[in-house]
Amino acid sequence: MSKVRIGIAGYGNLGRGVELAIRQNDDMELAGIFTRRDPSTVKPLTAGAKVYKLDDAKNMQDKIDVMIICGGSATDLPKQTPELAQYFNVIDSFDTHARIPEHFANVDKAAKDNGHLAFISLGWDPGLFSLNRLYAESILPNGKSYTFWGKGVSQGHSDAIRRVEGVKRGIQYTVPVEEAMDAVRSGSQPELTTRQKHKRECYVVAEPGADLAKIEESIKTMKNYFDEYDTTVNFISEEEFDAVHNKMPHGGFVMRSGLTGDGEKTHQMIEYSLKLESNPEFTASVLICFARALNRMKNEGATGCKTAFDVPPAYLSKLTAEELRAKML
Amino acid sequence: MSKVRIGIAGYGNLGRGVELAIRQNDDMELAGIFTRRDPSTVKPLTAGAKVYKLDDAKNMQDKIDVMIICGGSATDLPKQTPELAQYFNVIDSFDTHARIPEHFANVDKAAKDNGHLAFISLGWDPGLFSLNRLYAESILPNGKSYTFWGKGVSQGHSDAIRRVEGVKRGIQYTVPVEEAMDAVRSGSQPELTTRQKHKRECYVVAEPGADLAKIEESIKTMKNYFDEYDTTVNFISEEEFDAVHNKMPHGGFVMRSGLTGDGEKTHQMIEYSLKLESNPEFTASVLICFARALNRMKNEGATGCKTAFDVPPAYLSKLTAEELRAKML
Repeated sequence: MSKVRIGIAGYGNLGRGVELAIRQNDDMELAGIFTRRDPSTVKPLTAGAKVYKLDDAKNMQDKIDVMIICGGSATDLPKQTPELAQYFNVIDSFDTHARIPEHFANVDKAAKDNGHLAFISLGWDPGLFSLNRLYAESILPNGKSYTFWGKGVSQGHSDAIRRVEGVKRGIQYTVPVEEAMDAVRSGSQPELTTRQKHKRECYVVAEPGADLAKIEESIKTMKNYFDEYDTTVNFISEEEFDAVHNKMPHGGFVMRSGLTGDGEKTHQMIEYSLKLESNPEFTASVLICFARALNRMKNEGATGCKTAFDVPPAYLSKLTAEELRAKML
Repeated sequence: MSKVRIGIAGYGNLGRGVELAIRQNDDMELAGIFTRRDPSTVKPLTAGAKVYKLDDAKNMQDKIDVMIICGGSATDLPKQTPELAQYFNVIDSFDTHARIPEHFANVDKAAKDNGHLAFISLGWDPGLFSLNRLYAESILPNGKSYTFWGKGVSQGHSDAIRRVEGVKRGIQYTVPVEEAMDAVRSGSQPELTTRQKHKRECYVVAEPGADLAKIEESIKTMKNYFDEYDTTVNFISEEEFDAVHNKMPHGGFVMRSGLTGDGEKTHQMIEYSLKLESNPEFTASVLICFARALNRMKNEGATGCKTAFDVPPAYLSKLTAEELRAKML
């Protein structure tokens, strides 16, 4: 059987994660890396991997089965995914929840007009967490759902810290509050405020001579980022920062607490959680297994835009339907 | 929109659970209960619900969209599901893992020959746990999967206790070993023996004058049921038995510990768990939401036998595709 030929558009942390995930799936191969940078400056992890200008991708339509678009959700993907869907079957990890309907419509039109298939908003949230919300809410219609994130690095909040005057280096961890999760697990279906659900832990390397009290105050009171949370700010040395805070862990919890039975008094609890040492590597692993599903659905004639909700789970696996029933059911 | 008309074949704990689950889903209605008993002896929980002889079901094909078969896996379902699939679209919860391929083939033939659609082996294991094994193994191909059950009542082990001489009442709880689960969560991918994964806790009401030491010994050394486990036997009064051990709680954990990245050194952990106060009510809730999916797939022309692996998750929800993308993705 011929391998699924994967193109990677955008070669940051996620793009490198996709490159590494391809190695773990022997039914996939890397067809090329596409970048907005000068291709000669990009050094792939894989010996012999070809790097091209992103603008030249459209000339390689016959060499790529699925293009995985690894740009950011703020400005890259809203433009790149509809554009590349004209030329390729595409997958992205668009994660601006509020703008998903608009993004879906744009990608759907581009893909349908050109006979391509597109999967958007894949990864773990949106993605696996969305799937778990859907399964759990469909099974337990009388109930309440909760999503907790962390412990993990929030890129947006880390960027916000680094914009504070006197901050040389900074990283922010979102931390779910154990007491809140235990309250949910008890079946009491609590109403939880923003502050009750998550804490924010910041690690900062200050510039020499900076006013630490002022930095701490600026962070803790920052609107939209920190003011609604209990935030701790820890000042550390640059050595410690480099040694301890050089990874991108993340994860979280999706829970549904529901009631069933006569009089709806029986507590039922569904919980899904991820504990990830590398957020981009895990997200890439999700994208790659959905690329397998996309390729199959495309071969069956599907076109337009789809999400994780539309993919029969069996399509994600390398195993045949018979093997899945015998080994995994 | 017309409601999905549900038939219930077999009115034990699971059948009653299905009846109660229908009440929570306003796009479903109970079309009839079918029993091997004398219908006049069956008292439904729902006012006005009709009870029929199971043998008469075949005369009601135009009144039922989905027949949910609530018999046992040992002897009922291998016979009932292929038989009823001749006349109806059917769902069952067949859970004898080793015999699934054979059951699938029988049901598939009966359903295809008669233009019906059948879903088998639904519930939580097989069912939701199977789905989680499939998603997790597809995403993390380099890894190890673990399933733990409990704390919950095992019907088979409870039956086995009750066959011991001198036992008046008996119930058995399967208990996952916390230390084993924590070892899995650490990412060390341990090899675990049967004894290391689960404990068995028994509660027994002895006949007056029975030899308690002999009962305990008979239980603990029982082949295939208890001899490979650390088992505790607690003798209690009939009053305590009735007050404390009158429920059917269950649950469990599906975990996958995987490695990603350059050199495959990055630990990634996926965990899914259920904590159920009533096993049959929860299983029934799963069956009912898959009945919705079955009805949709049948209306699109699908026939034959399928499992949870073949169902696009969106089909389980009452929400439209647009609503799902806007609210749940």
